[in-house]
Amino acid sequence: MARVVVLRLGHRRERDKRITTHCGLVARAFGASEIILSGEEDNAVMEKLKDVVERWGGPFEISYVKNWKDFIKEWKERRGIVVHLTMYGIPIQKAINEIKEKFKDSDLLVIIGAEKVPKEAYFLADFNVSITNQPHSEVAALAIFLDRLFQGKELEREFENWKVKIIPQKRGKALVKRDS
Amino acid sequence: MARVVVLRLGHRRERDKRITTHCGLVARAFGASEIILSGEEDNAVMEKLKDVVERWGGPFEISYVKNWKDFIKEWKERRGIVVHLTMYGIPIQKAINEIKEKFKDSDLLVIIGAEKVPKEAYFLADFNVSITNQPHSEVAALAIFLDRLFQGKELEREFENWKVKIIPQKRGKALVKRDS
Repeated sequence: MARVVVLRLGHRRERDKRITTHCGLVARAFGASEIILSGEEDNAVMEKLKDVVERWGGPFEISYVKNWKDFIKEWKERRGIVVHLTMYGIPIQKAINEIKEKFKDSDLLVIIGAEKVPKEAYFLADFNVSITNQPHSEVAALAIFLDRLFQGKELEREFENWKVKIIPQKRGKALVKRDS
Repeated sequence: MARVVVLRLGHRRERDKRITTHCGLVARAFGASEIILSGEEDNAVMEKLKDVVERWGGPFEISYVKNWKDFIKEWKERRGIVVHLTMYGIPIQKAINEIKEKFKDSDLLVIIGAEKVPKEAYFLADFNVSITNQPHSEVAALAIFLDRLFQGKELEREFENWKVKIIPQKRGKALVKRDS
């Protein structure tokens, strides 16, 4: 099956540490295979995400790329399509069918930016897609995009090699812990 | 029509300023009528959200409540149902139909917490609902919950009294600005 990789542009170590962490966690929880960080290198965020994979399961990869433009160009040549999530783009409800059609036989790179995304990203992307044209959050945009792409099936995703797992409860908390 | 209000518990001024801002922006963009902050008072976050309403339109209310337990109890007596979003809860795909049924004739309070939510919230809530049982983000959980509740119609929401508005583009950016 085709894979989804998330590319987080323009990470700033101090300002974005929690938002970027949330982006990584959403990528994993909603069915992407990998998140690639760009911008300032940040071991703390990468370790935090690796720790979640270690405890809650995978597979899910975390890596860093310095030259994101070259990375995107190579992706387009060798792997597949590029979707850039931006409030300026075409509404997801209009774009999703064409994207799903292409996703059947090629991998998909989702680009999400921090505050200001360089113009080149808009031109490198095959699709500039908005999740509403209102200001909100790249965390929310990523979640809604993956939910539409996977049609809700990502909510049922089972992880491998977990050490901790939740048993859903009407009230309170229940956890299974195991060695693996 | 019944209204949705979001209650953000346990805000910490330094640590949560951006995440709480994103929660407020998502609440507005995805069709809620109001966000109520609790925890530490934070004028900077409230002003930031009010500024977005001023420029991008409303209606959308922002307020603060100190005693959130009393607030929830009063909500249940006078206004409607309470949904607490938590990774420990019942999966949304199992709970959403019953919630939608009740939402037809009563307002709905969505509770989202910061790091650790006090036990009482689980017991005051009518529904403890998970958006996957994996660790991710209250920002994403709120977006997915509202998207399911409003069945995607929130993506078409038009705002009133806006001064700035985006015209969706395949590439690049287009904004309308007006006095209002």
